[in-house]
Amino acid sequence: MNQALNNRMIVLAARPESMPTEQHFAMKDAAVEQPAEGQVVVRSLYLSVDPYMRGRMNDSKSYIPPFALGEAIVGGVVGEIVESKSEQFAVGDKVLGMLGWKLYNVVDAASVRKVDDQMAPLSAYLGVLGLTGLTAYFGLLDIGQPKAGETVVVSGAAGAVGMIVGQIAKLKGARVVGIAGTDEKTSYLKQELGFDETINYKTVGDLGKALEAACPNGVDVYFDNVGGDISDQVMLLLNTHARIPLCGAISSYNSKSGDIGPRIQTQLIKTRSLIKGFVLGDYADRTEEGIQALGQWLGEGKLKYEETIVEGFDKVPQAFLQLFEGKNMGKMLVKIL
Amino acid sequence: MNQALNNRMIVLAARPESMPTEQHFAMKDAAVEQPAEGQVVVRSLYLSVDPYMRGRMNDSKSYIPPFALGEAIVGGVVGEIVESKSEQFAVGDKVLGMLGWKLYNVVDAASVRKVDDQMAPLSAYLGVLGLTGLTAYFGLLDIGQPKAGETVVVSGAAGAVGMIVGQIAKLKGARVVGIAGTDEKTSYLKQELGFDETINYKTVGDLGKALEAACPNGVDVYFDNVGGDISDQVMLLLNTHARIPLCGAISSYNSKSGDIGPRIQTQLIKTRSLIKGFVLGDYADRTEEGIQALGQWLGEGKLKYEETIVEGFDKVPQAFLQLFEGKNMGKMLVKIL
Repeated sequence: MNQALNNRMIVLAARPESMPTEQHFAMKDAAVEQPAEGQVVVRSLYLSVDPYMRGRMNDSKSYIPPFALGEAIVGGVVGEIVESKSEQFAVGDKVLGMLGWKLYNVVDAASVRKVDDQMAPLSAYLGVLGLTGLTAYFGLLDIGQPKAGETVVVSGAAGAVGMIVGQIAKLKGARVVGIAGTDEKTSYLKQELGFDETINYKTVGDLGKALEAACPNGVDVYFDNVGGDISDQVMLLLNTHARIPLCGAISSYNSKSGDIGPRIQTQLIKTRSLIKGFVLGDYADRTEEGIQALGQWLGEGKLKYEETIVEGFDKVPQAFLQLFEGKNMGKMLVKIL
Repeated sequence: MNQALNNRMIVLAARPESMPTEQHFAMKDAAVEQPAEGQVVVRSLYLSVDPYMRGRMNDSKSYIPPFALGEAIVGGVVGEIVESKSEQFAVGDKVLGMLGWKLYNVVDAASVRKVDDQMAPLSAYLGVLGLTGLTAYFGLLDIGQPKAGETVVVSGAAGAVGMIVGQIAKLKGARVVGIAGTDEKTSYLKQELGFDETINYKTVGDLGKALEAACPNGVDVYFDNVGGDISDQVMLLLNTHARIPLCGAISSYNSKSGDIGPRIQTQLIKTRSLIKGFVLGDYADRTEEGIQALGQWLGEGKLKYEETIVEGFDKVPQAFLQLFEGKNMGKMLVKIL
């Protein structure tokens, strides 16, 4: 059937030195390949754009190899099987995988897994039940280990990860303080998600003072999505044996001149605190546990999520770039029309 | 008997803003108090001077309260019972405790514990079998968890903690790289203690390059005693899932202007590494395990230690200040004549 299908893909055209622009991406047309035995053809329905992808645009050693120049960008995709040469999938099945930014991906059946669009909307598998929800779940519970009555601070709190972190921390009985960059976001966190305190870091003036006021008993867990100045200030309020799951440093991903600030070692010694970088892959053997727990909270109405959905394949680079302007509330997705 | 004894003590005379000098200490004379029932009079034999004590000279929140102005400095002391009003101790017993920088301390029997001068020289209880040895043992093994074949880098490697860290790492089969500040120190580490590589950071020129050459397989464990520029360089070589026991930051203890450098968050995320501040008190319930292990290695000749012994009570402040000039090889102690 697919000999007639035209494919489009978005490739890495150049490596950005600082903030990426649309110039660093290019659209490429091609025919959809014939699937081999054991392969499937997946039509993209939703593409995920995530801050971590910025790291893969650099040519540097990291936990995943860099994107190749001229090749399609790879990220989370939910799609539909339109042709199957595998017994595992039928046409019409909905699947999730790390796939190319393409209208159609032709891949081995093992590279995708089926998702249930009766249990949750398809887009949820790229967010609350996917990479960002699981990242929040494992980072907060395994590294942060919040206890009832403790204070949990979340930066990037209105992002896809931050929102889930705050809600899980509330479910564990912690006092939750969220830092975000617009009043719309902070209002949502407080009124809709039940955060105890929120701070708009862009308008607050003295962030250190605002944090002190919001955290009268200090900070026991700091779930860090942003790094930079905001983290410098939170570090000053750590309690003894504080835990810091280090999830992202979006403020520094596009920094060319180097990311300079107060060294944190003395503060970590004084407070005997732990800080640990992690990625979801570190918890690959516990994925099912995480999906189960998140799915249950979701079903019980204890977990809410928000999505910012941009429409149209040609809008993918733009949606990605908007992450760094803090344009999204919750999970940023592109719906393929 | 002690009515005739004159006591001398060294008190905190002023709080230093940056590097302390002898002006921040003062000598005070007094009579030795009468011991109450249940108390003992301990004559000081060895006083320990340690970098962590610098923190207690500041009036700031930390894991132990600051020293009080006008009061005797408190630190590790080995002494001899010269009068006992407790059934637990007899005159002549040798004891260890956190006591005042005084010729004589009159304290409750529970504040000191007996040490065996047949098993090891008395001074060892302030070093390899005391605070510094145990700090090395727990920080390296509990947080660092070196495995055979891994690369362990130790800064402040010729200090009391660093020397023991390196040797325990060797006992665990790791490749050990030590950073120190004189050729005498680096030669000792390599020739006497069996370190695989050493770097004199003061004369090496490009420390980053030297570290790369010394760690061709990257760094799995970084036992950090110093902080500052040296740590900045080591952080760039971390392997995936590296562990960083954060023991000290001697390079910044006397910094007035603030301790500024590259933020480490991005590097920790890229490598999914763990960094944890700790103090020996975190392992209070495992003290006996540590002393046992260190004592056994010592007895088997698998662990060597070095001491820099200054003589005379009036030299205590000077010995303490020399820690920050890197004058000591191994444990810095003052012997009371």
